[in-house]
Amino acid sequence: MRSAVKPSVKIVEVGPRDGLQNEKQPISVDTKVGLVERLVAAGVTHIEAASFVSPKWVPQMAGSAEVMARVPKVPGVHYSALVPNLQGLESALAAGCEEVAVFAAASETFSQRNINCSIRESLERFRSVVDTARAQGVRVRGYVSCVLGCPFEGAIDPEQVAGVAVALAEMGCGEISLGDTIGRGTPDGARRMLEATARRLGIERLAGHYHDTWGMAVANIAASLEMGVRTFDSSVSGLGGCPYAPGATGNVATEDAVYLLHGMGYDTGIDLGKLAEAGRYIGEALGRPTSSRVAKALAASCA
Amino acid sequence: MRSAVKPSVKIVEVGPRDGLQNEKQPISVDTKVGLVERLVAAGVTHIEAASFVSPKWVPQMAGSAEVMARVPKVPGVHYSALVPNLQGLESALAAGCEEVAVFAAASETFSQRNINCSIRESLERFRSVVDTARAQGVRVRGYVSCVLGCPFEGAIDPEQVAGVAVALAEMGCGEISLGDTIGRGTPDGARRMLEATARRLGIERLAGHYHDTWGMAVANIAASLEMGVRTFDSSVSGLGGCPYAPGATGNVATEDAVYLLHGMGYDTGIDLGKLAEAGRYIGEALGRPTSSRVAKALAASCA
Repeated sequence: MRSAVKPSVKIVEVGPRDGLQNEKQPISVDTKVGLVERLVAAGVTHIEAASFVSPKWVPQMAGSAEVMARVPKVPGVHYSALVPNLQGLESALAAGCEEVAVFAAASETFSQRNINCSIRESLERFRSVVDTARAQGVRVRGYVSCVLGCPFEGAIDPEQVAGVAVALAEMGCGEISLGDTIGRGTPDGARRMLEATARRLGIERLAGHYHDTWGMAVANIAASLEMGVRTFDSSVSGLGGCPYAPGATGNVATEDAVYLLHGMGYDTGIDLGKLAEAGRYIGEALGRPTSSRVAKALAASCA
Repeated sequence: MRSAVKPSVKIVEVGPRDGLQNEKQPISVDTKVGLVERLVAAGVTHIEAASFVSPKWVPQMAGSAEVMARVPKVPGVHYSALVPNLQGLESALAAGCEEVAVFAAASETFSQRNINCSIRESLERFRSVVDTARAQGVRVRGYVSCVLGCPFEGAIDPEQVAGVAVALAEMGCGEISLGDTIGRGTPDGARRMLEATARRLGIERLAGHYHDTWGMAVANIAASLEMGVRTFDSSVSGLGGCPYAPGATGNVATEDAVYLLHGMGYDTGIDLGKLAEAGRYIGEALGRPTSSRVAKALAASCA
């Protein structure tokens, strides 16, 4: 029998950032704030709401300071923002961010193509970002991309993932989010990658960030749960798509992740019905159907 | 390191039957045969190709005898057909079927609503079907539906599933296919159900038949694989939809199941690219987009 108190899992909602930044059309600040409001109303407590990259590079993230100013300030709700460098960090600090995130790759080629520098150079650049943030009492999350494969290199050695994760942790990143950027991983690969990384960092600070491009994300979350991972990134309505496979799915839908977690007896604090409402809101705003099977099933069973 | 010889998994393709019977539009025999031909070309060796139920009840299955007559007879390729009763069995035998399947439910209410009799009555009816088939040297597969939940009753006791599975096995069914008819199960529930059933029948004769309505099918297959299940039912392109949630997904897409299995180091004998071609063929014939994430990702990466 299960104990009366359910174990809990932390969902980090990345739809407003990782999701929307991969949508093709411009998105107003009003729409972004409206999405965050609905996510908060659904009980989501960790939201990556903005990105302080140059709007020249990612126009969808314009207005991030205004978004941060307008999102509902609710006790227990935490917002974070992506920062590529010190300049981005300064903007994030000015906007009152209490947590920021830096992003490194586990693939050398991906690092070069995505952020125009080697993995080592990117880590050096992040060091001053992390130092400055922590001196201000701001938490830093570290992303590692391509942990289960690279669009350019193919397979990635789990030890390579572990090495980048350790470097981020040693410079002061608290949580390390391990991303299957191209969504090609399967549960055995996820387990090997997590084993290699947890051996050096412990499992507690690791988060699973799985893309559902090849339909494997829910299975990878289930496998990670069994390994002891208790933090997962997801994107309401499966926002974002996949830049490496246009037309295909990107981040796992938060609705699907939450359905799995609740079904397996974990508490997320999230109301699935209200979460699906947030998904419908942004889907209507973008004129795009949901990528969430759970959202589709909920809509069909209400029809 | 993995051994050189990959362990193999048997895929039972149910798209031409379980899939097409849930499509709304009429489907010509030519189209059905064309689909089966493409599945065989992709290396699929077990295909449920027909259903000898009354076309009054399931008009999409009209022409089953002609389908069975026309599908390619290739060594190593096995066709089966669903039979609801002795009359259906006679038609299947006349059509030269070498394997038939009977279907019982693990839910009393579902049994009443789906086949108008109690579970016990359905099992009694199947006994003569199984006896007659086996006397002719024809193998019989037993389906159990609602193994992870019922649209009317909700949760289903794993022991109830095991009981129905045992009854089918005792009357002479070889393989027992355990169906999550409403696609609401999660891996922990699948494990409990499989444990209860395998305790009485062994794991070897059990097949997993998972619907992807709530996006959990691939995770349930992965969990079942770990339990030792080596046979899975699936439907190319995710054909069929879900009669209990119109607009939502039904059977797990064969493409998604095969991608998972290959990614986890299992051999299916199936060529994923050719399988996706079979999916595109039937999708074009039906004018319906694929439900397979893998098919979408493949199409996107070729674009």
